Amino acid sequence: MASAEILSIGTELLLGHVLDTNSQFLARELAVLGIDCFFRSTVGDNKSRIKEAAKAALTRADILITTGGLGPTADDLTTETLAEIFDAPLDFDREVLSKIESYFAASRFPMPESNRKQALRPRGADILPNANGTAPGMIWKLNESLLSKLHIPGKQKVILTFPGVPQELYAMWKETAKPFLEHYFSGETIWSCQLKHFGIGESALAQKYEHLLNLANPTVAPYAGFGECRLTVTAKGKTEAEAKVIAQPVIEEILQTSGTHCYGFDNETLESATAKLLIAQNKTLAVAESCTGGLISQRLTDIPGSSAYTKSNAVTYSNEAKMTLLNVPENILVQHGAVSPECAEAMAKGILNLAKTDIGLSVTGIAGPDGGTADKPVGLVYIGIATKDKCSNTKLVLPSQLSRANIRQRAANTALNMVRVLLLEQNS
Amino acid sequence: MASAEILSIGTELLLGHVLDTNSQFLARELAVLGIDCFFRSTVGDNKSRIKEAAKAALTRADILITTGGLGPTADDLTTETLAEIFDAPLDFDREVLSKIESYFAASRFPMPESNRKQALRPRGADILPNANGTAPGMIWKLNESLLSKLHIPGKQKVILTFPGVPQELYAMWKETAKPFLEHYFSGETIWSCQLKHFGIGESALAQKYEHLLNLANPTVAPYAGFGECRLTVTAKGKTEAEAKVIAQPVIEEILQTSGTHCYGFDNETLESATAKLLIAQNKTLAVAESCTGGLISQRLTDIPGSSAYTKSNAVTYSNEAKMTLLNVPENILVQHGAVSPECAEAMAKGILNLAKTDIGLSVTGIAGPDGGTADKPVGLVYIGIATKDKCSNTKLVLPSQLSRANIRQRAANTALNMVRVLLLEQNS
Repeated sequence: MASAEILSIGTELLLGHVLDTNSQFLARELAVLGIDCFFRSTVGDNKSRIKEAAKAALTRADILITTGGLGPTADDLTTETLAEIFDAPLDFDREVLSKIESYFAASRFPMPESNRKQALRPRGADILPNANGTAPGMIWKLNESLLSKLHIPGKQKVILTFPGVPQELYAMWKETAKPFLEHYFSGETIWSCQLKHFGIGESALAQKYEHLLNLANPTVAPYAGFGECRLTVTAKGKTEAEAKVIAQPVIEEILQTSGTHCYGFDNETLESATAKLLIAQNKTLAVAESCTGGLISQRLTDIPGSSAYTKSNAVTYSNEAKMTLLNVPENILVQHGAVSPECAEAMAKGILNLAKTDIGLSVTGIAGPDGGTADKPVGLVYIGIATKDKCSNTKLVLPSQLSRANIRQRAANTALNMVRVLLLEQNS
Repeated sequence: MASAEILSIGTELLLGHVLDTNSQFLARELAVLGIDCFFRSTVGDNKSRIKEAAKAALTRADILITTGGLGPTADDLTTETLAEIFDAPLDFDREVLSKIESYFAASRFPMPESNRKQALRPRGADILPNANGTAPGMIWKLNESLLSKLHIPGKQKVILTFPGVPQELYAMWKETAKPFLEHYFSGETIWSCQLKHFGIGESALAQKYEHLLNLANPTVAPYAGFGECRLTVTAKGKTEAEAKVIAQPVIEEILQTSGTHCYGFDNETLESATAKLLIAQNKTLAVAESCTGGLISQRLTDIPGSSAYTKSNAVTYSNEAKMTLLNVPENILVQHGAVSPECAEAMAKGILNLAKTDIGLSVTGIAGPDGGTADKPVGLVYIGIATKDKCSNTKLVLPSQLSRANIRQRAANTALNMVRVLLLEQNS
């Protein structure tokens, strides 16, 4: 199996001015081609550090992919530095030069002298054409004699260079580099998917699926964040279809075992999973929010077509709003307070009646950082859920030290998940 | 001047499943501290490659910062691998263990055995506390005798480890790591601030302040994104106080010239700037949202203490909700439609009356991707604003090709800015 390393070149990356999305794009694409990528690095516009990083990468991997440093200015050093590593002369490419000239002719701007340098390439390297800009990249097949100059073992390695502008890089990858690599290395294809879980912790999940975590093909790995977690299943095969077939039994086992804990694949969110069920069951949902302040409503309406299940939602922050809009009885607020199971249920019933929907959902709690007491600390949240026949509530005790935004997100996650599970149960 | 390297650890990064935003955050923060960063690298969850990358980084730089690999599962290898490099024994930290136990006690999930490993740390390392998760990081000062084990020259270097979850990392950086590094390396201090603008484009801003863009100390640079833009003023001095004094005259010039276009500094948002004015003027605001679906309400209540100005907000998605909740006259909906200046004004008046606030704000539009027509394309938004005496509306025509989320954010930005400017004008 072939291996590649990605080297991102640019001082703007090291200063954090630019987010390196190119590396993520290339990493994904290499995985699809079945090319391993074990290291990725970033250096600035500095010859000696570019050399150090490029040599280290070529020592370890079969393919070096660079991004950035192909522009016309003095700090664009990629081509000349790579040539220097192998002591290769730089030639002007007439064809590239005339393309750059015609690019400028079409643009009405005069061509600066410095752009000529973009037509330089190390002797023996091929051009990686760039349809969307003046900087072409190169595909440089390094033979044994070049490699021996660096005391690098191996008969053939290859360097591909790309400009840093993402749109130029994407097109160059798709049109030239990807077909070249597919042909050059006839390797395996990697296919992977994420199974997203809610209501179960990362370590509990890892324990439940311990027998899967040491498989070789497919591999299974747990990841966590934001009170939810996911299992990534990754399979290798000669084709994508074969890899999928290899992954399938494990995916089915997880779906079966996890039950309602697993809410979907890849880009699924708790709101999109809930929305799908609402639409499939032709049901409507109304939300009355206190501490989440509109967050649940915002997430539910982020989904195109949300008007199918949304009529109106309310943010009832003050006690007065809870009474006048949702008909929460005053004695509940006086006796139990706004953050109570009684209030959560009254709010859920209230919004159900106001909006005339199939399901009413409510959230009331203390998001902090202020407003907590010994009895009712920051992080205490009650969620109410009501249908025509039934009303219930759930108590959530989140760690008080979490940020306000985090408490609100987790409360919203749990609330959305309650609707999702209710819809699944009603339908089963 | 001290130097640092960032090492991101995680197979999910190498496969491109996750975009490495942590590295950008850390790179920016290091630049602000005046700490050089010449290399950045990424490796998977693999001991030998973590070792190789960590050793190379420590040979070159004074500080190694790692992200990822601190979780409870078998593929979380950072702590034990770093300990192995220096042949340091791993001790259980009782305090960390009890914190992890209380975290689980509060969360309703039983604590899995594997979480105990998150309390391990190499002998001699200090804890880098994590307020938002179970995985603490560490600050490990490496003395000469540890460094000599790797034949690394130098008297002292330091390793800082962070989990991969961005929100946890940000808080840990701000609360502990940044103050530690500021104290640890006393170099030249860089101080910078951002002046955030709304309602003026990047190039107009750059033109207006052309005379400032070539200054040497302080420097002034414009950045843009998401329909708003900012000027960053950066000054160097022996101390932070000295750097601030150097920046001050330029900041004052910008504040004077930009007027209401500049809504605040650094972490100020349109909602926090609006909230400050509402609180200072003791005024209340109610929002009736259609296409933004709760986003404005969510943003306004993200701010601690938002109950001072929020009573109730409504998301009125359906025409029926607009009529019953907000008293929008049926003939407006029939004659002009829900996306019209007339409806926006009626909604703003309606929510003002319903919530009995000083200001009523409304948004109605087409967020897409579907629902657009030749007359009313995706991206058309009307914003209404009402007080006791006055009601007006603004038409916003956003590019149709923008994403639904982007259209909703920009509509919310403009709406919040209208309230902000109204409050400034009322008070002037």
